[in-house]
Amino acid sequence: MSHVYRLVISCPDQVGIVAKVAAYIAEHGGSIVEANHHTDSIEGWFFMRHEILASSITSGFEAFEKGFQAVADAFDMTWYLSDSEQPKKIALFASKESHCLADLLHRWHENELPGEIVCVIANHDDLRSMVEWHKVPFHHIPVTPETKPQAFAATEALFQQYGADMIVLARYMQILPPQMCADYAGQVINIHHSFLPSFVGAKPYHQASARGVKLIGATCHYVTQDLDEGPIIEQDVIRVTHSQSIDDLKRLGRDVEKTVLARGLRYHLEDRVLIHGNKTVVFS
Amino acid sequence: MSHVYRLVISCPDQVGIVAKVAAYIAEHGGSIVEANHHTDSIEGWFFMRHEILASSITSGFEAFEKGFQAVADAFDMTWYLSDSEQPKKIALFASKESHCLADLLHRWHENELPGEIVCVIANHDDLRSMVEWHKVPFHHIPVTPETKPQAFAATEALFQQYGADMIVLARYMQILPPQMCADYAGQVINIHHSFLPSFVGAKPYHQASARGVKLIGATCHYVTQDLDEGPIIEQDVIRVTHSQSIDDLKRLGRDVEKTVLARGLRYHLEDRVLIHGNKTVVFS
Amino acid sequence: MSHVYRLVISCPDQVGIVAKVAAYIAEHGGSIVEANHHTDSIEGWFFMRHEILASSITSGFEAFEKGFQAVADAFDMTWYLSDSEQPKKIALFASKESHCLADLLHRWHENELPGEIVCVIANHDDLRSMVEWHKVPFHHIPVTPETKPQAFAATEALFQQYGADMIVLARYMQILPPQMCADYAGQVINIHHSFLPSFVGAKPYHQASARGVKLIGATCHYVTQDLDEGPIIEQDVIRVTHSQSIDDLKRLGRDVEKTVLARGLRYHLEDRVLIHGNKTVVFS
Amino acid sequence: MSHVYRLVISCPDQVGIVAKVAAYIAEHGGSIVEANHHTDSIEGWFFMRHEILASSITSGFEAFEKGFQAVADAFDMTWYLSDSEQPKKIALFASKESHCLADLLHRWHENELPGEIVCVIANHDDLRSMVEWHKVPFHHIPVTPETKPQAFAATEALFQQYGADMIVLARYMQILPPQMCADYAGQVINIHHSFLPSFVGAKPYHQASARGVKLIGATCHYVTQDLDEGPIIEQDVIRVTHSQSIDDLKRLGRDVEKTVLARGLRYHLEDRVLIHGNKTVVFS
Repeated sequence: MSHVYRLVISCPDQVGIVAKVAAYIAEHGGSIVEANHHTDSIEGWFFMRHEILASSITSGFEAFEKGFQAVADAFDMTWYLSDSEQPKKIALFASKESHCLADLLHRWHENELPGEIVCVIANHDDLRSMVEWHKVPFHHIPVTPETKPQAFAATEALFQQYGADMIVLARYMQILPPQMCADYAGQVINIHHSFLPSFVGAKPYHQASARGVKLIGATCHYVTQDLDEGPIIEQDVIRVTHSQSIDDLKRLGRDVEKTVLARGLRYHLEDRVLIHGNKTVVFS
Repeated sequence: MSHVYRLVISCPDQVGIVAKVAAYIAEHGGSIVEANHHTDSIEGWFFMRHEILASSITSGFEAFEKGFQAVADAFDMTWYLSDSEQPKKIALFASKESHCLADLLHRWHENELPGEIVCVIANHDDLRSMVEWHKVPFHHIPVTPETKPQAFAATEALFQQYGADMIVLARYMQILPPQMCADYAGQVINIHHSFLPSFVGAKPYHQASARGVKLIGATCHYVTQDLDEGPIIEQDVIRVTHSQSIDDLKRLGRDVEKTVLARGLRYHLEDRVLIHGNKTVVFS
Repeated sequence: MSHVYRLVISCPDQVGIVAKVAAYIAEHGGSIVEANHHTDSIEGWFFMRHEILASSITSGFEAFEKGFQAVADAFDMTWYLSDSEQPKKIALFASKESHCLADLLHRWHENELPGEIVCVIANHDDLRSMVEWHKVPFHHIPVTPETKPQAFAATEALFQQYGADMIVLARYMQILPPQMCADYAGQVINIHHSFLPSFVGAKPYHQASARGVKLIGATCHYVTQDLDEGPIIEQDVIRVTHSQSIDDLKRLGRDVEKTVLARGLRYHLEDRVLIHGNKTVVFS
Repeated sequence: MSHVYRLVISCPDQVGIVAKVAAYIAEHGGSIVEANHHTDSIEGWFFMRHEILASSITSGFEAFEKGFQAVADAFDMTWYLSDSEQPKKIALFASKESHCLADLLHRWHENELPGEIVCVIANHDDLRSMVEWHKVPFHHIPVTPETKPQAFAATEALFQQYGADMIVLARYMQILPPQMCADYAGQVINIHHSFLPSFVGAKPYHQASARGVKLIGATCHYVTQDLDEGPIIEQDVIRVTHSQSIDDLKRLGRDVEKTVLARGLRYHLEDRVLIHGNKTVVFS
């Protein structure tokens, strides 16, 4: 992967935004590797993402970033510039089920994940050995109804201590406290084991079996205080038949879950996801 | 397609069913073209479908059918024998949207549909010419809140006059009266323009757009008195992105709707769908 | 669909292209509805497509087009500007099989196709009635080995007489003369009934059955003098099993063929396909 | 998973096979969990697979198996009976790439794989630690052009020493000697990183990129002496676009490869694959 800077912008739509942004990039010698725009004509909102070859920006990251503020101000932009060589630091939250965790750890091990896994925090100790083999610190913080406040305080302290930029709930099976959802809005990704909005809540594979659907799915979304209602990043499905038991659905579903989470996480890590209200723009 | 008899059975599960049925078929010289079984071990229920080469049954359809009753009684079977050369007679119900109707008419025109379209009944007159070009009788029966009882009485009379075996709601946009749903249980197929149970009710593409899902779908199901809650026959989905408007979703969805309806209807016409409670076994 | 102008560009890659193009658009008050870029870093080539709201270009189409030539010259661009209210004129070539033809005619009938079907030319007369019901002129030009040169001369004359911009081979089953392929490069679209490059040439479903593949597909591509070797626009597949006969493969394949052709044609009609060598950039 | 016996049969088609087999099963009290038939009417060949609840066969495995020989002889059957509690022993062959190996090891670790991985044999030492963490013996047998005969003799000796029933080439990147292909026909499974028959041979992702296909795939097949020509068990594809580099294709392809291999291997381990000539019947 080339070393790039990523300029991510959203703002009210008006004529001339692209020209001003492109002119700024060109003035700094920026060689554009990839560019994506989207205009939401209903909302009157504009979204843009550029990947610019870092080596082409002779003034350097800080100067380029600082100078852009004037452009941003002119169009009332929400924006940031990121550096692909400063990958996001990820805290993985897990429980007992290993498939999503193992999948992400393996991708990281193989240098496929454009992020850095800094720690795993789990409410059970079962997956310690797997995590530690990957040379990732593992922390076991049990969560019970009584100890929930303390457990999440400890979890949050750890998260901050590692300087993590984001949390991935890799089948964590615990509901984050509302305050934590609010504090880390847009930084916490969950994988839900159904094709949302079908089968919210518990035991979606049981629900799917009871309804007799012919496809089951998984949904990667940002966590908000409204359970299973956050902005959707990615979804996929797999075909099932009457002959498949709930255990079969779970097995087939695991493959969809890990694929969908890996794909959604990649989009987030590469700054391809822009949240607007309860929806996402994904420049995949 | 070969001329076959289809023997379709469901009954409480027990040892020896297959042996008895297979023995009966073999005794009559039956050459089995296709056979499918399913045991629902939770419900303790058994499902079976055979396609038997008609020419191999030297005793003829009636004798074969009559003789089987003894086997059926022994196992408390719900069953029937059908003849592929006596295709089901279909009444298509339509409104203004043509895509599902045109698709089914074209398949029938090309001898691809294993059924016979005997008439089209529509609550608008728009599609008359298209239907009549296919040499299918077209009846316009308007439905208003005031005339609904009379309109459906007329509709049902027509349906019976044509000797139709089943109804396909090809984007009919009217809710059938509860009594009609009950009287024709398992004989009325609908196409719903969402991946049920997501987005029940009206304007599913608007709902899908508002929720920001990344796949949209369609569902072919039997009609029951509970709207959008009947046994599902077939479903499929198509990928969408943030850049697609509601009109785009409708356009993309139309392709899924007609494919899913055509597939689900084919399964029904070939006696591949066995209803059990609110679920289906589909021997596709 | 909004009334838009589409500016489609390809040129050697260098810094500043986007800025210059965006500046030109902004200077003319252009409101960008959709923008796509692609840099092929191996080939050093740049591709760009803009959709600009026609009503925002106060100077009008001609002035906007004329003025852009200076920008184009500076970057050695291959480019064009098109107007969504001047849809491309399509000549459909067909034979006996109706599924692709019926599908495209229906989409056109329903105002879904962003193009204008000006005539159907077929080497058999079978589909005349279907075409004429859609109020499209139908011409029967038989092609035999002996009459091939005259037949194609007549075909080309008709094509020109209708002012057609492009040809769609909707299962035409005849190989166009090399000169015609050359003269109309990038303007003739074919649907091949396999997932190319698998099963080039005749009877791909027989080949697929013989090889025992588990998916069959279809390919929409530009026609070149090398049969089945032209730039691919779109492909898709459908799952098959051992239980499906060659007739089943044909039936299932027809659905894929018409979907893939409709999708590929739409991309072409909306100026979303840029050909470079034997590959395409598709801004879908 | 229930403890079942699997009765797998293929033979020339004739009337009465099902009846005789079903009668034999019923006489022994066999409770059929799953049954599948297929008649290849072109070849005149019949295929059948039963899963029978082990606990229902009161006479026991050996007596049931021995007694069936008379039925088998009467119909000239090729057949076997297997026991789900005697899972097949798998030797995994690997090289440097870890994705397929890690995927299978993880499935085994999570008790998802209906087989037993008895050893990994690799021509490079890179994956030793990963394998040994899973408590599977790892053997490094380098293969060079000069040492190929000795290396494969050593490999075969190891394979036999472990009592392995089958070999999985998990991106092994070496061509097995013809004699080994012949000796273990139907017992060696490979994953090829293309949608065969497209892109046989080396570097399929480079070939796919050069041809500009819009979907890439993977193929799980039995190994024969004709490279990439063996009977296909399973295939799948994933969509790609012009914007994806060869490295992207490799990354996306890895996900397809591991899914397709895992699915194909599962079918084989559960005795769902019947080979006939160069094709397979897969009772999935």
